[in-house]
Amino acid sequence: MKKLLTLMMFAMATSLLSSPADAQDQKVRWRLAETWPTNFSLFSEVPRRMAENVKKMSGGRFTIIIDSANKHKSPLGVFDFVSSGQYQMAHSASYYWKGKDINTLFFTTMPLGMIEAEQTGWYYFGGGKELAQKVYGQYGMRYYPGGNTGNQMGGWFKKEINSIEDLQGLQMRIPGFAGEVLAKVGAKPTNIAPGELYTALERGTIDALEWIGPAMDLDMGFQKIAPYYYTGWHEPATELQFLVNEKAFQALPEEFQAILEIAMQEAAFEMAAESYYENAVIWDSIKQDYPEVQVKTFPPEVMSALKTATEELVNEFEAKGGITAEIIKSQREYSKKAREWTNISDKAYLNNLSE
Amino acid sequence: MKKLLTLMMFAMATSLLSSPADAQDQKVRWRLAETWPTNFSLFSEVPRRMAENVKKMSGGRFTIIIDSANKHKSPLGVFDFVSSGQYQMAHSASYYWKGKDINTLFFTTMPLGMIEAEQTGWYYFGGGKELAQKVYGQYGMRYYPGGNTGNQMGGWFKKEINSIEDLQGLQMRIPGFAGEVLAKVGAKPTNIAPGELYTALERGTIDALEWIGPAMDLDMGFQKIAPYYYTGWHEPATELQFLVNEKAFQALPEEFQAILEIAMQEAAFEMAAESYYENAVIWDSIKQDYPEVQVKTFPPEVMSALKTATEELVNEFEAKGGITAEIIKSQREYSKKAREWTNISDKAYLNNLSE
Repeated sequence: MKKLLTLMMFAMATSLLSSPADAQDQKVRWRLAETWPTNFSLFSEVPRRMAENVKKMSGGRFTIIIDSANKHKSPLGVFDFVSSGQYQMAHSASYYWKGKDINTLFFTTMPLGMIEAEQTGWYYFGGGKELAQKVYGQYGMRYYPGGNTGNQMGGWFKKEINSIEDLQGLQMRIPGFAGEVLAKVGAKPTNIAPGELYTALERGTIDALEWIGPAMDLDMGFQKIAPYYYTGWHEPATELQFLVNEKAFQALPEEFQAILEIAMQEAAFEMAAESYYENAVIWDSIKQDYPEVQVKTFPPEVMSALKTATEELVNEFEAKGGITAEIIKSQREYSKKAREWTNISDKAYLNNLSE
Repeated sequence: MKKLLTLMMFAMATSLLSSPADAQDQKVRWRLAETWPTNFSLFSEVPRRMAENVKKMSGGRFTIIIDSANKHKSPLGVFDFVSSGQYQMAHSASYYWKGKDINTLFFTTMPLGMIEAEQTGWYYFGGGKELAQKVYGQYGMRYYPGGNTGNQMGGWFKKEINSIEDLQGLQMRIPGFAGEVLAKVGAKPTNIAPGELYTALERGTIDALEWIGPAMDLDMGFQKIAPYYYTGWHEPATELQFLVNEKAFQALPEEFQAILEIAMQEAAFEMAAESYYENAVIWDSIKQDYPEVQVKTFPPEVMSALKTATEELVNEFEAKGGITAEIIKSQREYSKKAREWTNISDKAYLNNLSE
């Protein structure tokens, strides 16, 4: 641990020595703390791809060392690590910080909210970027998109859900805001450590759980013990995040600032492509290897109840006013237009093809 | 023209002086020829965003000058410009080159083919990148994605299409492969210069035309003279392209190679986000300002005929064997899996919400 501290102090010192002038004779070494454990598949690849590209683009003068949660021991400590300057960067997800600041909730994904193409349009061109900066700027940090998982599946269920009654008292692992929505319609959301999920589902401690999507679910083994795989509603476009300490960023030479920003953006976009590809290929393998798995969608009355519950909770946030109301207004106005476009473009196309 | 030639020779000379060694004391100036006229909205922004980021990331040592078609006078000459080394780069679309090499057709979009998320997954992770390189490598060039327009609308029609009969003899501006498909089901596809399209549609020289989507269509004014706006089938995910001369690329210092590649990829991804955003916002304004515009979809019998016609033409290509068959096989196998994933993710989600 002492060795780690020394290394970190060295890294901070080298970055603080940088001035925003000429980068050609400078060496900068940064450290990034990720929320994920070692080798967390699609997620872990994003900061690594980013760091590799930063190194290549800077001719080896700007390097970023990545510490997984196995090393720094605090998956949900990374916000404070970057805010305090202990690490220059983090890779995580914005909705983990809703307990610290409710405004962080809106930059990851919202239940029954925008799909990925809609949300990415909002972030880059519809005001999302500026609003995220307003929120994170208060903590001495810069926010950047960190890669999208795509539409997450609604989860693995041991029994079918045919009505609102079937949700009453249902023990389901579903953390965060989506859990609050589900509680409002009568379910009993719980959170359980990832390593204990399989056993909890197998033994009936829980009746259902949501994880991510085929690409990340397969290795968890849920398909062996819960045959009903529900389509998604709660995380239609989960966007991870990069956080960057503002002072460390300002101390970078301008060309390294540009290299870092473009590398983060490119890695985030590329994750969305990789998630889609992996979900497609792995879903195909699940269908082959586990023919007992059945895809289900919640009936209209359940969808309608979830929608009402989500809207009520969002309206409560909106009543707080300030940045919260500003973010909600921006998303509402844009997402209505975006969905109209989705309906006459990709949705019409897909439905037209299968008639 | 002489001045242009001198400038180009200077640009080539500076780039050829580069060696793949250290980039820190080097200045490189490249020229890019785009197929588009000056200020062609979303399209023109892609090479400009890329060039700006290359300049920033290289601390001003690597600059790329962009010549629009108004300057170089040969929108469809850019393939040869880059292949011969007259320009180091181009921004265009792969399907324009199907007359030179049929294998270039498959990297833009295919009628009734993959939507953007599916296609981008295939390109980056499903073998598309390697196949594109096999094709373009033969011409001394490197291929990179150049930004996506999103699902293009089926076009503006003066009369409704209720049956296959309504397509017989229909005069429609629809160039390229999609035009061949439409000809197979009885329509009369034509190509008309963009500047003459409005008048041709207004005077009835043509009965219908396809252009791009709301964001690019609005300024053309078609909504004033053809009330039926059909949903898309022929270009579900039009991806533009960057072409780079292989020798010029090899002569770049390694860090400039990395800077160029990441900047191209980021700019391409960002165009997809911008297209979505612009289509959403502009479609909303068209609905407000032109309430007489009606969105229509082709009836199932028309869709089915278009599908059969497309499959027959693709099968003819496949029979040629070689790289052609290899590309078609790769796309077929992957896109089947990808569509299954789309069906249980975004499509199920969108349909479930509107029930």
